[in-house]
Amino acid sequence: MKDWATLTTVEEMEAATNSLLENGKKVGADSWQQRVKNQTPHCGFGEKGTCCRICAMGPCRITPKSPRGICGCDVHGIVARNFLRFSASGTATHSDHGREIMHTLHDASPDGFYQVKDPEKLIRIAKEWGVETEGKDIYDLAHEVAEVGLMEYGKPFGYQKFMSRLPEHTQKLLEEQELMPRAIDREVSQSLHMTHMGCSSLPEALLQQALRSAMSDGWGGSMMGTEFSDVLFGTPKPVDTTANIGVMEEDMVNIIVHGHDPSLSEMVVHYAQDPEMIALAKEMGAKGINVAGVCCTSNEVAMRHGIPMAGNFLNQENVVLTGACEAIVVDVQCIFPALGPLSKCFHTKFITTSPVAQMPDSEFVRFTTGDAGVKAKEIVEMAVRNFKNRKPELVNIPKQVSKARVGYSVEAIVKVLDGVANSQVDEFGTTKPLLDCITSGVIRGAVALVGCNNPKVRPDSAHIALMKKLLENDIVCIVSGCSAQAAAKAGLMDPVQAKEYCGDGLKRVCELADIPPVLHMGSCVDISRMMVLAAELSKDSGIPISKLPVVGCAPEWMSEKAVSIGNYVVGTGLDTFLGVEPFISGSERVASLLTSDDEGYKKWVEANFTVEKDIDKLGDLMIQRIEDKRAALGI
Amino acid sequence: MKDWATLTTVEEMEAATNSLLENGKKVGADSWQQRVKNQTPHCGFGEKGTCCRICAMGPCRITPKSPRGICGCDVHGIVARNFLRFSASGTATHSDHGREIMHTLHDASPDGFYQVKDPEKLIRIAKEWGVETEGKDIYDLAHEVAEVGLMEYGKPFGYQKFMSRLPEHTQKLLEEQELMPRAIDREVSQSLHMTHMGCSSLPEALLQQALRSAMSDGWGGSMMGTEFSDVLFGTPKPVDTTANIGVMEEDMVNIIVHGHDPSLSEMVVHYAQDPEMIALAKEMGAKGINVAGVCCTSNEVAMRHGIPMAGNFLNQENVVLTGACEAIVVDVQCIFPALGPLSKCFHTKFITTSPVAQMPDSEFVRFTTGDAGVKAKEIVEMAVRNFKNRKPELVNIPKQVSKARVGYSVEAIVKVLDGVANSQVDEFGTTKPLLDCITSGVIRGAVALVGCNNPKVRPDSAHIALMKKLLENDIVCIVSGCSAQAAAKAGLMDPVQAKEYCGDGLKRVCELADIPPVLHMGSCVDISRMMVLAAELSKDSGIPISKLPVVGCAPEWMSEKAVSIGNYVVGTGLDTFLGVEPFISGSERVASLLTSDDEGYKKWVEANFTVEKDIDKLGDLMIQRIEDKRAALGI
Repeated sequence: MKDWATLTTVEEMEAATNSLLENGKKVGADSWQQRVKNQTPHCGFGEKGTCCRICAMGPCRITPKSPRGICGCDVHGIVARNFLRFSASGTATHSDHGREIMHTLHDASPDGFYQVKDPEKLIRIAKEWGVETEGKDIYDLAHEVAEVGLMEYGKPFGYQKFMSRLPEHTQKLLEEQELMPRAIDREVSQSLHMTHMGCSSLPEALLQQALRSAMSDGWGGSMMGTEFSDVLFGTPKPVDTTANIGVMEEDMVNIIVHGHDPSLSEMVVHYAQDPEMIALAKEMGAKGINVAGVCCTSNEVAMRHGIPMAGNFLNQENVVLTGACEAIVVDVQCIFPALGPLSKCFHTKFITTSPVAQMPDSEFVRFTTGDAGVKAKEIVEMAVRNFKNRKPELVNIPKQVSKARVGYSVEAIVKVLDGVANSQVDEFGTTKPLLDCITSGVIRGAVALVGCNNPKVRPDSAHIALMKKLLENDIVCIVSGCSAQAAAKAGLMDPVQAKEYCGDGLKRVCELADIPPVLHMGSCVDISRMMVLAAELSKDSGIPISKLPVVGCAPEWMSEKAVSIGNYVVGTGLDTFLGVEPFISGSERVASLLTSDDEGYKKWVEANFTVEKDIDKLGDLMIQRIEDKRAALGI
Repeated sequence: MKDWATLTTVEEMEAATNSLLENGKKVGADSWQQRVKNQTPHCGFGEKGTCCRICAMGPCRITPKSPRGICGCDVHGIVARNFLRFSASGTATHSDHGREIMHTLHDASPDGFYQVKDPEKLIRIAKEWGVETEGKDIYDLAHEVAEVGLMEYGKPFGYQKFMSRLPEHTQKLLEEQELMPRAIDREVSQSLHMTHMGCSSLPEALLQQALRSAMSDGWGGSMMGTEFSDVLFGTPKPVDTTANIGVMEEDMVNIIVHGHDPSLSEMVVHYAQDPEMIALAKEMGAKGINVAGVCCTSNEVAMRHGIPMAGNFLNQENVVLTGACEAIVVDVQCIFPALGPLSKCFHTKFITTSPVAQMPDSEFVRFTTGDAGVKAKEIVEMAVRNFKNRKPELVNIPKQVSKARVGYSVEAIVKVLDGVANSQVDEFGTTKPLLDCITSGVIRGAVALVGCNNPKVRPDSAHIALMKKLLENDIVCIVSGCSAQAAAKAGLMDPVQAKEYCGDGLKRVCELADIPPVLHMGSCVDISRMMVLAAELSKDSGIPISKLPVVGCAPEWMSEKAVSIGNYVVGTGLDTFLGVEPFISGSERVASLLTSDDEGYKKWVEANFTVEKDIDKLGDLMIQRIEDKRAALGI
């Protein structure tokens, strides 16, 4: 065991948080730490998934004395219906983000606020989709492709276009099981229909729909979100940045961008660099303007602009608690309503911008593609002018900062691999050099670590402990979302230091390729990048995805999106390991369909879930699964 | 007060049910009556709407000691999110029914299982939608219109086409409030997105989305369900039938059709008349084949073929308990999973047919438009061959039957009105004769009575008591769904008897027009017929819908669909009265936005909800509202 001494520990991060909570106490601020205490213990029926509120005859709860709801549904039907709804809500949410990106693309113009930054990628996808590209103005093409993409949400016939990216083996399997996803919104609506009072109560049917609807997210809405964010804002390339709460600057205007959709944050980042705004900041007594990110918005702007990462999901209150946050500007998803009352305890402006995420105690500056620049500038100016309202006695920025190299899109990874390919014998533009490393055993396999924080797990502890364990075992980590930020904060994306702690094989690869052992692939919609990578590995090797020594892991997940993600990762053929229980333990039948090796998911899509709250054991199980897959391949 | 002596009372119906429950006891059958006991008392958090299971940090419950969830959401946000999800799930469900009809239309062919039965209506809607009709084969037109209709679910731009049917006043109001519904599935997905962890917690925003998404149901999916069912299966005209459990025949094969989508029941009805099947029935010892309906499927086939109505929602177990049900054949929605184990106590075959509604302990005969006839015949044959398995000692069919005239589509109502119009002075094809009756005070107004049964109300008691009260007060009732069946069972649709109990004005109108005082407008999707009627009344009178002496009422509602319906009825401008509480009492703010005269719904759409569990008082409140509206109009 290595001691990882030069990295930031969870204990150190927790100490920093505690000092911020002290700040909060001075002004009577509430905190998630306190609310968790108030809300514990949780309702056992809810936790087990055995409470049904789907019609107004109830609510019903399943107990030994009341084994069926009023309609006669048994516990397996109730648990499975709740699970499908949970997942489908995540599908809807994730995919709606993608839809917004498609509308932004539809509004892109050479002289508007949004341009096509990666025309090559646009043309590539247009060709993939069978859209004629020859002789077309790039903006005309963008609008045409946007319309085709928007139809993926509602077309009456046919499957998701990106399904053709999957290896033939997977497509065939999904076709046979009737799991090929149709229009995204149709899958969402059908999920609600199936779970309506008096519709499906057969767990198999409900779980299959959870898979199918989730596939329309991962290989539909989310993937469009990723791909066309690249088209609009540029495909990420490796870039160096910094992470953790110490990226906030005591003598600058601090603007925190938080949420998911880069359409907003890109504009805020742009106008924070506006000389007029910087001049105004200086006039207000600041040295300049510092934009930092929280949650997936942070991943988006870090990967494209090197904007520092202030923290992940459970750090969102921390940035306000520093007393040095002039504005926290949010769009959609994972935004604590708590930021409303919390910001009122400080001088912080809590600025909501999307009709989809409207909150009490916020200032709503409605943001549309048509007036994006105007509104972004207005927001930046609000923040800058707010600098003078800062209360110096409340300013407390813990000095924790780590270096991180981020921005590993699939394109960037392939480019790294091209750099180490042998020009005499190797093809370029493939994943084959990585496959060679895996086959030879220099790297044992890969784990895609994703997902949130959840107070049910000591924040970041599972992410970080698992990564350390995997790296020591020569397993490369590809990460996104809050998992990515946990890694960055700890220092696991520092290309100089982190490799020192890896197993010898992985360390050699990192040195050769000049990469950190934990590769930042983006935000939560960017898990679609991981899916594309898995598909490419399968196609380049001829091995089905389910047989590759690659697994997925969400050790601290909390949101409905995470369950949709889990379902499409498994649906793609990757075994997935969870550190937090979904609300399914009330039904042995549902649990078995999700986790058994003999039925359900495993039979339908060749992969399943493993749930293990003991994080060390979870790591061992993943390593074992990877080694088992290697053994089965004879490598 | 009249004594309504010749009609069937709730007490008599209850006695019949009790004798059936005795039958059940002999074979150890469970029943909703018993399950209600087991499930009472219900969870108070669920009933108040103050429990949140939207992310896996929780579940959270709001109490004085824990006033916010872990994310910081307050009780108003939690209650409003739950309410929006409840409504949006109803929108998805109702509209998905419409989608299936559109797919059936898309598959219609002159020599297939489905034909265009009302080409005139198809052409009328095509013209309304701007689809070129000239010189087109009717099936080519049907397929083109079906594709246009299917796009209403997913089109990336524009509002629901049927919104143009609304009076200008309403359209303008909705446009100003941003409540014009876009693609149906998009509104559903956005509802889930808004309620996802970390999105909207502002009650106003959440309730506005509940209205907007519901409008995409009432003026979108549901309306298409109705309109194109008419195109495919014929627009209902008044037809005489019978209702109540006594419609089941002791010496015949009894096939019960149950659910919602007429694509299935139409075929079953057809093949039950097949000479080959009738001969087989006789071979099995039966006198023939008797098809009867339960729930909205019953309304569909009663209105188009005079098929008798065995009962409504809370009677679905009763038909099996007679011991004389050879098969209960279901498609989607409001089907008790209890029918699985219950049917096993008898010889009854419980046949599920839709991938959307799959249940344990059922025989799944997958039904598609392509093989509809084959499957329907197979189902009829299964039922017929099952006759010999009947256990005579368990047969108990209570002798309750009432006469009912059903089938009042808007077209049929207008035709009735044409019949009483004065050919010298009146326009034909309008609602003006009805408006004249209302203006003169012969009829005081109209109430649209809709919705389910709910064990929280003594079954049918509220429907029937309210109708009696309204009729006595010269208020005409238009009804649908389980409310319609309650009326039919009681005898309130008997054109000879029922009018005797009405006030003098309404009685005169019934005699003149030869109609029952309670007009059967169809199934729950057919509430869209009521909306069209309200819009026509407004356009013909020049009075905004919200000022007409017309209100909506769902005294025994239970499903998510019912909340979607409530929202679109109110969104259309009709005050709506509920006899069962939605799960909102935990938030004064949400309750006020829904029910206040000074803010929220009333301000946005000129109508609101009234919730009153005392049914007699609910009736008084409706009459008062109607009289207030009359007074405001000076009539």
